[in-house]
Amino acid sequence: MKTPITLFAVLFLAVITEVHAADKIPAPSHGIPYPEGWQNWATIAVSHRTDNNTLRAILGNEVAVIAARSGNTNPWPDGAILGKVVWKDTQLENWEAAITPGEFVHTEFMFKDSKKYTDSYGWGWARWVGLEQKPFDDGMKVCIACHTPVKNRDWVFTEPAHFP
Amino acid sequence: MKTPITLFAVLFLAVITEVHAADKIPAPSHGIPYPEGWQNWATIAVSHRTDNNTLRAILGNEVAVIAARSGNTNPWPDGAILGKVVWKDTQLENWEAAITPGEFVHTEFMFKDSKKYTDSYGWGWARWVGLEQKPFDDGMKVCIACHTPVKNRDWVFTEPAHFP
Repeated sequence: MKTPITLFAVLFLAVITEVHAADKIPAPSHGIPYPEGWQNWATIAVSHRTDNNTLRAILGNEVAVIAARSGNTNPWPDGAILGKVVWKDTQLENWEAAITPGEFVHTEFMFKDSKKYTDSYGWGWARWVGLEQKPFDDGMKVCIACHTPVKNRDWVFTEPAHFP
Repeated sequence: MKTPITLFAVLFLAVITEVHAADKIPAPSHGIPYPEGWQNWATIAVSHRTDNNTLRAILGNEVAVIAARSGNTNPWPDGAILGKVVWKDTQLENWEAAITPGEFVHTEFMFKDSKKYTDSYGWGWARWVGLEQKPFDDGMKVCIACHTPVKNRDWVFTEPAHFP
């Protein structure tokens, strides 16, 4: 039989569990730990892929941003992490010619470590899917295949945008 | 008559002046001081304006980013600063369907202070043009006129993107 106090305890535990779940760090992708705090990284570039109707923000950790701003990107220095945040594109309600982020798709990261990742061209490749950031684990070869056109640019598509 | 030592001194002064000029903070726009350090602010959204072929990163200071991530944006809180970084669009050489930042155009900022900026709907409006960040001084009315379609959204076009 549930007394009011037992019910309160159950509700309290449910709330605590929910708060804890929201703070949970996503599991690794391809063995690479989730890069916590990337949401506050600085911007290196943006892009609009018209072939799959997505908008992207390309962010970087401090090592990557310093490299990008100073043109030191071929090769990128060890320790650099590049992050691509991907949304389906949509139109802004109040300015229809403005294409803006709609549904969130995934985050993709490249971790530069020329000693650790010798088998994958000096980069660790990872992806987390959806707002729940479910780790992608189909193998780095999937990422590498798509990036092959830029193997002479240290495997990076992004050209850092000009910043004053 | 210039001795080698005088020449050296002139060159040294020229270098020092150049370094100093590069560090110079741009003059105010509409009386608003330049928001130093915005280059490292976090991203709130991105956009591609197909009517004038520009790409934009919409950044925010800490107050603005906390408000954006928590949906507290109508009104935006006092202290929030929104920054729009604008580039002409171009195509990525190695992936032509990807539209990416080309020539840098300008930065635009909205400074929320509901007490200070009562004459301009609670916002200070400013713009700095080109990589040299030359202050725009044609009056806030120019900015306000364009933002009138979103006067019911606290004068802000940007809908914060979903972030995990």
